[in-house]
Amino acid sequence: MLFFSVNTVLNQSILLFYSLQLHFFVYIHPMYRLLTYDNDARRGEVTTSHGTFQTPAFMPVGTSGAVKALTCEDLEEAGAEIILGNTYHLYLRPGMEIIKAQGGLAKFNSWHKPTLTDSGGFQVFSLQDISRVTDDGVEFKSHYDGSRHMFTPERVMEIQHAIGADIIMAFDQCVSYPADYETAERGVQRTTNWAKLCHEYHQMAEQENSRQSLFGIIQGSTYKELRTRSAHEIIELDLPGYAIGGLSVGESKQEMEEMLAHTIQYLPKDKPRYLMGVGYPEDILMAVSYGVDMFDCVLPTRNARTGNVFTSEGQMTYRNAEYANDDRPLDLHCDCRVCRRYSRAYIRHLYNQSEITGMVLATYHSTYFYQKLMRDIRKAIEEHRFESFRKEFLRRYHQE
Amino acid sequence: MLFFSVNTVLNQSILLFYSLQLHFFVYIHPMYRLLTYDNDARRGEVTTSHGTFQTPAFMPVGTSGAVKALTCEDLEEAGAEIILGNTYHLYLRPGMEIIKAQGGLAKFNSWHKPTLTDSGGFQVFSLQDISRVTDDGVEFKSHYDGSRHMFTPERVMEIQHAIGADIIMAFDQCVSYPADYETAERGVQRTTNWAKLCHEYHQMAEQENSRQSLFGIIQGSTYKELRTRSAHEIIELDLPGYAIGGLSVGESKQEMEEMLAHTIQYLPKDKPRYLMGVGYPEDILMAVSYGVDMFDCVLPTRNARTGNVFTSEGQMTYRNAEYANDDRPLDLHCDCRVCRRYSRAYIRHLYNQSEITGMVLATYHSTYFYQKLMRDIRKAIEEHRFESFRKEFLRRYHQE
Repeated sequence: MLFFSVNTVLNQSILLFYSLQLHFFVYIHPMYRLLTYDNDARRGEVTTSHGTFQTPAFMPVGTSGAVKALTCEDLEEAGAEIILGNTYHLYLRPGMEIIKAQGGLAKFNSWHKPTLTDSGGFQVFSLQDISRVTDDGVEFKSHYDGSRHMFTPERVMEIQHAIGADIIMAFDQCVSYPADYETAERGVQRTTNWAKLCHEYHQMAEQENSRQSLFGIIQGSTYKELRTRSAHEIIELDLPGYAIGGLSVGESKQEMEEMLAHTIQYLPKDKPRYLMGVGYPEDILMAVSYGVDMFDCVLPTRNARTGNVFTSEGQMTYRNAEYANDDRPLDLHCDCRVCRRYSRAYIRHLYNQSEITGMVLATYHSTYFYQKLMRDIRKAIEEHRFESFRKEFLRRYHQE
Repeated sequence: MLFFSVNTVLNQSILLFYSLQLHFFVYIHPMYRLLTYDNDARRGEVTTSHGTFQTPAFMPVGTSGAVKALTCEDLEEAGAEIILGNTYHLYLRPGMEIIKAQGGLAKFNSWHKPTLTDSGGFQVFSLQDISRVTDDGVEFKSHYDGSRHMFTPERVMEIQHAIGADIIMAFDQCVSYPADYETAERGVQRTTNWAKLCHEYHQMAEQENSRQSLFGIIQGSTYKELRTRSAHEIIELDLPGYAIGGLSVGESKQEMEEMLAHTIQYLPKDKPRYLMGVGYPEDILMAVSYGVDMFDCVLPTRNARTGNVFTSEGQMTYRNAEYANDDRPLDLHCDCRVCRRYSRAYIRHLYNQSEITGMVLATYHSTYFYQKLMRDIRKAIEEHRFESFRKEFLRRYHQE
């Protein structure tokens, strides 16, 4: 009897313990769940108020609220589970007022799955027409009408709150490549200060914005010690996710890998890791091997519109004359809707005639190709054969 | 026993008679089947080697082999059963050699339902850069590269044979509006002579082209006696279908209706009647009431790309500022994929950003709207309530 009673108490304690732990877990890690791993490659999922997406994930870029040439139905069919919107573009057009009045971006563009908005930092720092950069923020001219605007950490938070994406990014200074040490260091300082201000602003935000998760961005150009410093300072804010920014901006692939390998060691294992603006399939595979969970890049969509698609046998410039009479699909090993029905000859013809349909078909294929790559990566990690998958994929991709 | 025997012979004769009649019917009317009618409005179907389409039918225009901004899947989903290709454009790009090598247009563009190609006459006569028009044909410069080309009846047949559409059109001279009597008369003469040459060429064509049906075109501008003459001369060729050309080229709606009403009385009831280049929903309803079976027009697709869609409450210039914050669908009474998901505010925003996705969404809606109109027309004729349907449609369409 006594034995039984103790056992019951023990059981209850264990239940209580698990329940507290679960609550604790849900509370401070509202988003990331690590499912399994294969060496450093991670297979997880991220839950947002618009549902869960599987990681490693690739986010198609929907600059103005739409992934160029695709509908939401296309994206869903291609397997995209999260898309990215550009804060800079959405802020200028249609503007916060309209997006707010329409109930936020998800209601406005009818994409009902998760969305992430970038900080606008990359765009404003890439602008030719920056008027002034100070420790407070950036003054710039709209590329639409030349009107003057100012991005500060608080303003960028305010805008991203209005847009209402599930994941929002802290305002950062992305220095161009190559950057001298002083410039890179000033970038890191500003990025840290701005992240703190973003975090404070976001913590004081309205209840309705509490479902939005703020990710911090680590900068530092190609200087390991600056990367270390930036990582420490940003992670100290205890945000629900971290991005590595300032890569894929012109540095060599070797430098990119070195910086990634160096930086990622500081990132907590229980939060999603996002490598911004990357990239080529081989870069994604490299980064996944170090434990990156999220990616975005305009490559598949932009290239598709200009005559080049990604295939299992490498990039293919389908606009080339050699495909004028080629009745094979864009990708011989692809089972997407476009590859099952249309030929290279036809899609090349449409490209030459500037037919919108051609851009739609090519964009669909490349978007599908990237999503299929991510599905294959996830499966390979689950089955603990990521490195052999990577090797096999690259062997075919590079036609070796 | 004798009685039984006679009866058997009779039965066999009847069977033989029906079987002969059927054969006869199949032979000289390979295409049109009249299902029912409502006053002069006809409900039928046309069978081609790529299947059957229901009439009255509207053919979306796929100038270069694709309906601009749509995929074949979009067209199928919107309910299109036949599309039109432009001989002039396909001849210049990608050219007969490629289309031939790819097994014809249907294999090239993967549209597996029926296709009709126009004669190229409308395009070459609309060109600014016509070098020479003679009784033999038209010499013109390519709008792509200025190269010189000649369209003759035989050449146009040869091209349409290479393209391989199910329905092909005789080469005609479409005079511009207004035309003096002499010009119009010369147009009729040439159109008749050319139709004869086309017919002869087509009859001598390869076995593989025998599945293509040649339609004749009736011209005559706005002169009733020329229309009568053209109708008689073209119908004498006993072709499997007839088109009324040279309307919707600038004349008033009243003139169009008068010419249509006058011309259609000469057309045989057992063959499809095609009113070329028409038109607005109200024009289609008018023409159906006189017994027209087939239509084509760039209006729904071209307008959609430039900011205007067709809705059950009339045309709507969705690019207008008044829709900037309008969360309602393009058409309040439409059940298409676009209207079920996207708002005016969003599609207008995409238009303003020159986003391809916006053109895709608007084009899809207007294409669906036209196909839905044709489905509703067909149902109304079947239920012998076409005039009340027309009245009710126009009441809402004109917001009366």
